[in-house]
Amino acid sequence: MPSEEGSMAEMEMIEKIKKLATLIRYYILMMTTEAGSGHPTSSLSATELMACLLFSGIFRFDSDHPGAPNNDRLIFSKGHASPLFYAIWAAAGEISEKDLLTYRKFGSALEGHPTVAFPFAEAATGSLGQGLSIGVGMALNAKYLDQLPYRTYVLLGDSEMAEGSQWEAMEIAAYYKLDNLIGILDVNRLGQRGQTMYGWDLSVYEKRISSFGWKTILLDGHSITEILAAYEKAVRGKDQPVMLIARTIKGKGVSFIENKDGWHGKALNREECDRALKELGEVDRSIRGEISLPEDLKPKEENPREEKKKIDYPADKPVPTRKAYGNALTRIFPKFPHTVSLDGEVSNSTYAEIFKEAYPKRFFEMYIAEQNMAGAALGLSRRGKIPFVSTFAAFLTRAFDQIRMAQYSDANIKFVGSHAGVSIGEDGPSQMGLEDIAIFRTILDSVVLYPCDAISTEKLVEEAAKHRGIVYLRTTRKETPILYAPSEEFTIGGSKVLRKSEEDLATVIGAGVTLHEALAAHEALKKEGIFIRVIDLYSIKPVDGTTLQEAARATRSIITVEDHYAEGGIGEAVRSALATSPVPIYSLSVKKKPKSGKPQELLDYEEISRDAIVKKVKELLQK
Amino acid sequence: MPSEEGSMAEMEMIEKIKKLATLIRYYILMMTTEAGSGHPTSSLSATELMACLLFSGIFRFDSDHPGAPNNDRLIFSKGHASPLFYAIWAAAGEISEKDLLTYRKFGSALEGHPTVAFPFAEAATGSLGQGLSIGVGMALNAKYLDQLPYRTYVLLGDSEMAEGSQWEAMEIAAYYKLDNLIGILDVNRLGQRGQTMYGWDLSVYEKRISSFGWKTILLDGHSITEILAAYEKAVRGKDQPVMLIARTIKGKGVSFIENKDGWHGKALNREECDRALKELGEVDRSIRGEISLPEDLKPKEENPREEKKKIDYPADKPVPTRKAYGNALTRIFPKFPHTVSLDGEVSNSTYAEIFKEAYPKRFFEMYIAEQNMAGAALGLSRRGKIPFVSTFAAFLTRAFDQIRMAQYSDANIKFVGSHAGVSIGEDGPSQMGLEDIAIFRTILDSVVLYPCDAISTEKLVEEAAKHRGIVYLRTTRKETPILYAPSEEFTIGGSKVLRKSEEDLATVIGAGVTLHEALAAHEALKKEGIFIRVIDLYSIKPVDGTTLQEAARATRSIITVEDHYAEGGIGEAVRSALATSPVPIYSLSVKKKPKSGKPQELLDYEEISRDAIVKKVKELLQK
Repeated sequence: MPSEEGSMAEMEMIEKIKKLATLIRYYILMMTTEAGSGHPTSSLSATELMACLLFSGIFRFDSDHPGAPNNDRLIFSKGHASPLFYAIWAAAGEISEKDLLTYRKFGSALEGHPTVAFPFAEAATGSLGQGLSIGVGMALNAKYLDQLPYRTYVLLGDSEMAEGSQWEAMEIAAYYKLDNLIGILDVNRLGQRGQTMYGWDLSVYEKRISSFGWKTILLDGHSITEILAAYEKAVRGKDQPVMLIARTIKGKGVSFIENKDGWHGKALNREECDRALKELGEVDRSIRGEISLPEDLKPKEENPREEKKKIDYPADKPVPTRKAYGNALTRIFPKFPHTVSLDGEVSNSTYAEIFKEAYPKRFFEMYIAEQNMAGAALGLSRRGKIPFVSTFAAFLTRAFDQIRMAQYSDANIKFVGSHAGVSIGEDGPSQMGLEDIAIFRTILDSVVLYPCDAISTEKLVEEAAKHRGIVYLRTTRKETPILYAPSEEFTIGGSKVLRKSEEDLATVIGAGVTLHEALAAHEALKKEGIFIRVIDLYSIKPVDGTTLQEAARATRSIITVEDHYAEGGIGEAVRSALATSPVPIYSLSVKKKPKSGKPQELLDYEEISRDAIVKKVKELLQK
Repeated sequence: MPSEEGSMAEMEMIEKIKKLATLIRYYILMMTTEAGSGHPTSSLSATELMACLLFSGIFRFDSDHPGAPNNDRLIFSKGHASPLFYAIWAAAGEISEKDLLTYRKFGSALEGHPTVAFPFAEAATGSLGQGLSIGVGMALNAKYLDQLPYRTYVLLGDSEMAEGSQWEAMEIAAYYKLDNLIGILDVNRLGQRGQTMYGWDLSVYEKRISSFGWKTILLDGHSITEILAAYEKAVRGKDQPVMLIARTIKGKGVSFIENKDGWHGKALNREECDRALKELGEVDRSIRGEISLPEDLKPKEENPREEKKKIDYPADKPVPTRKAYGNALTRIFPKFPHTVSLDGEVSNSTYAEIFKEAYPKRFFEMYIAEQNMAGAALGLSRRGKIPFVSTFAAFLTRAFDQIRMAQYSDANIKFVGSHAGVSIGEDGPSQMGLEDIAIFRTILDSVVLYPCDAISTEKLVEEAAKHRGIVYLRTTRKETPILYAPSEEFTIGGSKVLRKSEEDLATVIGAGVTLHEALAAHEALKKEGIFIRVIDLYSIKPVDGTTLQEAARATRSIITVEDHYAEGGIGEAVRSALATSPVPIYSLSVKKKPKSGKPQELLDYEEISRDAIVKKVKELLQK
């Protein structure tokens, strides 16, 4: 039984939280009405849930150092509840009421959905169903890498539980026993255009979430005593992640918008806001909530033995670049001890398994759940790790929304897509990455690399690790000859001119598999006295504009060859780099529906083989 | 209690199925060894499950008319078990042993993973976790549209149950009470590089799948009597979809590969195959299985009252193109009675709700589960419907793997992405579609349309419905002025030259929001005596090469302007169309990290506004 003093202190805290909740509601209404847009009702439903979390001593956070390693983490998977997110930090005294009035205004750090412009946002959210995966990454980091006791809290909406990505996050969290991951499910019944599939039937969520291996706690999401008890229970959990399943009312606190259709994503006009504020009653605008500080512990540092591995490939033995990837990641790890490898159940194909065998504690099997893998990588990246995320290039399309969102979070993630192109052969189109270069090029400030041999792969994996930002590295299934010497340098934005003469009639630009085809074409044409320049465009983005301009001036035409669809790939990258150059640019690419077959058969069929290049060059000579 | 004759008949059937299963195993081993690649062990584990389904009278299929509306449907979500898929049709007598030996060979209909080149494949599969959604679409069609009693069976692997998309399919199937959808989960314990998360613990699957509202039946996947009883029970299910959860052995039937690591995706060499065939014992190669025929019923036809709606927009009242989409779909429905609308919980934003209100039986709410929505659309398309799939353009990236796979299934799906570009304003980057044009351009033979006003939207929605194939239509959030008269025609591959003179110094190409900016820029420049050509590139793919070539010849330079990232969008489409033209092509596009703000502020910030266009034109004049 709590003591009298204990009860008094608790009652005081409850009273204070009530006042803070009222203040938060005031902020939510005021900032959205001022902005003329936003999601007040979605924010009001989770107000007590967040006020209790932050201001009852459960959440431990050093606000002066938001990124500090010991802080608990709070992610709003329901990113549209951003007014609530900003409001709680205002209630904590970290931002002012005046700041709140800049909500959604151009140049404000308080964007419509949280971005990392706001110092307390762990990541950009707003595309639903992604926050739990980010939390998985941060929790994996806490439990297995940093080995710190911080917890990760994720506020979830009920509508977004329809997203399969949430269930990926849940299964992986349970599998990895992430008892430091706590979800708070705000079941307010209403989605955007009407009721969710299950309304307030908490038992549906409870059954499903517990079947996925989580501990569940059901509660009234507006009862401060129930919420506090739920958090107390949650942080005592062992071996299992925990989900608070809270019955809430959308628009809670304002009678005329409570639990009503038609109020999603709608700000109150000034008159409505005045009425709403009256309903709130007395608002103590001076009150501020205190957040407990975390312990100050040191993250576990990885101190790998300096391996002094060298790049070692016999010049006469072809090696698949996917294998060189595995070797490279393993070799460079001592230089980049924050590296983590994530793979989607294909590590024996992507060769992430080489790294896994050398550094098993730095490898996480993420199973066939690419969306969660990408989201967890973002979480790990935000916690200072360098995730290398590997699967087949084709399957990275599965995670493209997560990849898209990562660019708004200053992410430092390296994506590695193997089995690029038709040249994978008999497995057929479902396994062929043919649009991966295109999708990764759209990512702001991304780097897109496509090495053609083991040496350049080794070098570029290292460049990728050195580079801060999103990198995509494309690897090949088949073994390819060693072209380069270990002493050669490769840079992001660079290229290699491999064949050059004063008589070059055309420039042929390839990468990966087609670079080798281009060299073979060069040989064949040379025999007939026809000379072409051959460029290895191993850096597709940024592209080596200078070398391309030079080739454009020196040779009559450019031919790009890629084992990729025509749109958005190497051809279009080159055309953009040479957009103001008059030289004609021809693109050999995959233009026909691919099929099963031997690699060389398919290269010929798609007219991206050595023979097709020779044919194209000769065609051009006739013009 | 079965009668003696009943028992005899049943025992004969069981004996025959055993022989067929042996024959199927023979086929699987033989075809993969001949091909030198493939997934025999994954095929062997589901052999009895499939033999029982097809040859016990449960499955009803008219093999002479694979696409016929009354046929049951069979989808291999675990597409890598293609050897099993082809083997069962050989056992049915539909293809020969000789055909099987063409497996994975270039030009064969028997590709490495099933594609629609094979007449009995309902869709291309091979990217895991997608088959159940396709099944959802086919089952929705049976229950709610065609109103036919056919059932849809989906063979699933245990590894692929990690994919969130499967749980999307499951929740939607339960919600829509698809008791005509039967999943068969082949729990063989082993994934690609090792054991799955749950091994043979069927209870994990059972708990989860039943919590998602499915009826579950656990069984020994190699016991013919248990399997037959399970199917009998499954087809009697009511109101709930049914999942058979079968404990199986990967590689079953060949002792040295049964339940062993390292045998995923590995064909036996000839010596191993000989040994394996010996283990199979006597193979009756003449035996063939019979498949029951379905009833011959007529699908329910939609006979909409001819609405005779007209395109009607007052010329002086701006309308958002997203709203025109809703109007258009509703207006054209009588001409296209196979239309179905699917939306992802945003129909009041995409305006699919207009269609929903007019034709509620043709609309399916798919909730916040875009992957399943796209997969279900494929299923509906394969059953002769014309799905219009709508959500925010940004969220179509969530379904990009499903969209990618649809191109290998001769799909007829129209994707409609609203809220394109930074011009959505205050909601910020998570909600902005900025890479959607790029991703849809990569789809083989896709059509990409981007109308700038309500009239052209109405016309192009109709063109999209007429066109057979994958179409992407991009719509805008804000209202835009009516530019065109209702009598104007718009064609796939067309464009409109809106401003033209003999003195045009540059051509400005825009679409959607930026087309209006271009017209405003034209006005402003005209006042200064500077003339530009303005082209509405409403068809981005295929692009109107003729008009572009003409503009390239007539004006000194081309400026493309798009509310989209630089890569893969309008700029690169135009550069590709003019790849051999010497004219310089400048691209105004979104190049800076977008943020919240007013639409016009953002257009200016990203330098894709009227002012930016004017500035660019003047810059060029100085060159």
